[in-house]
Amino acid sequence: MSENRAAISNVKALLFDVFGTVVDWRTSLIADFTAWANRAGKRGDWTALVDAWRGAYVPSMDEVRKHPERGYLNLDALHRASLLRLVAELKIEGLGAEDLAYLTTGWHRLSPWPDSVDGLTRLKRKFVIGPLSNGNVALLVNMAKAAGLPWDLILSAEVFQHYKPDPETYLGAARLLGLDPGQVMLVAAHNSDLRAAQDLGLATCFVPRPTEYGPLQARDFRAEGEWTLVVSDLRDLADRLGC
Amino acid sequence: MSENRAAISNVKALLFDVFGTVVDWRTSLIADFTAWANRAGKRGDWTALVDAWRGAYVPSMDEVRKHPERGYLNLDALHRASLLRLVAELKIEGLGAEDLAYLTTGWHRLSPWPDSVDGLTRLKRKFVIGPLSNGNVALLVNMAKAAGLPWDLILSAEVFQHYKPDPETYLGAARLLGLDPGQVMLVAAHNSDLRAAQDLGLATCFVPRPTEYGPLQARDFRAEGEWTLVVSDLRDLADRLGC
Repeated sequence: MSENRAAISNVKALLFDVFGTVVDWRTSLIADFTAWANRAGKRGDWTALVDAWRGAYVPSMDEVRKHPERGYLNLDALHRASLLRLVAELKIEGLGAEDLAYLTTGWHRLSPWPDSVDGLTRLKRKFVIGPLSNGNVALLVNMAKAAGLPWDLILSAEVFQHYKPDPETYLGAARLLGLDPGQVMLVAAHNSDLRAAQDLGLATCFVPRPTEYGPLQARDFRAEGEWTLVVSDLRDLADRLGC
Repeated sequence: MSENRAAISNVKALLFDVFGTVVDWRTSLIADFTAWANRAGKRGDWTALVDAWRGAYVPSMDEVRKHPERGYLNLDALHRASLLRLVAELKIEGLGAEDLAYLTTGWHRLSPWPDSVDGLTRLKRKFVIGPLSNGNVALLVNMAKAAGLPWDLILSAEVFQHYKPDPETYLGAARLLGLDPGQVMLVAAHNSDLRAAQDLGLATCFVPRPTEYGPLQARDFRAEGEWTLVVSDLRDLADRLGC
């Protein structure tokens, strides 16, 4: 796997994409909603909901990007708006305000991939570690508490009022850390995220998560750029960085 | 000691003033600079420097507040500017660029009070915990790594581009946490900080740090408001909150 020792030696902070890279959103949400529906006596195609909901993710952020005059809406707000549309489309009935809140905050309760907590705990010994996620701050804090993600700080699109891949996110994160972009490495399972970070001078690390989208996975099976580092998972990243 | 059970039961997040409340800046800096000067062969009245430097803290933030047209300067920048002025006034000579950087980042290397790490570690089990400090993000992250402060997230004046006691800091913190002001408790050794937080609806906790300013301590020996809670230290706070 490719790596670039010269760039790696400058890195002081590791920032992580979260949805898909650190946590397994699809498996988590389908299991969570299915168990909840059985307890609560609700009927619906939860797999269809989860897949359609994630399908609405990028378009909903694009709307924020295209309409700055409307102001920034955080990801909880976008998730909530998409959910209202999708439960109608999927004819999921009988959901009250508490049910909709439970489903929306499902994104706060996602489970980590099996290597995530151990890998992050080891990486934290030598590096500043944090998410750099489109999730809002409360979502990321709640997720970290529930999943045991040992972040040093929470960096979120919400702080910068811009969603990735807007440059304000990657550069704003480096600025708040008091670091040059080349002293920050973005770790992500998505080649497009790494491309945006690399274009701005950040170091990059690809970690494949080929089951992220389940049977719908259509991309990101492998590294598609000259990334600083390519690893098999976050334990492998800790090994490679001597943690 | 006074407390208000009704308000306490709503609290989900504990935010901490840092300089003086969590870390003992005066003892830390005097010891750090004295040891460094002995190693590096520098001469100066380090106690006088530290006290004058802290004296410049509030006026330097007031300048930022009075001149928004100049843009926000973070605390590292304010500390650096004050240092340059004070080393001239105190006739401390022979300091190069690396020396000035070492002194400025002394504020990143402050030691916690003896009860801080244990108290915070216990409080983290039941509450979201973070600083709400005028220190910049990098300063707070470096301090946490060095001192072992187990924050869930870093909330800094720098994120809000406003220094405490501007309302943007307290209300911005609650907003990012997705909480109402009354679900957030500010913990501080300074009555003025608590007053500003209380006026905006936050719960408040006073912890006395009567040696913070050494022989120069002139205030904050005791609670001077109807704070939600008054504790003896952060271990006592953990006891009171059942952690």
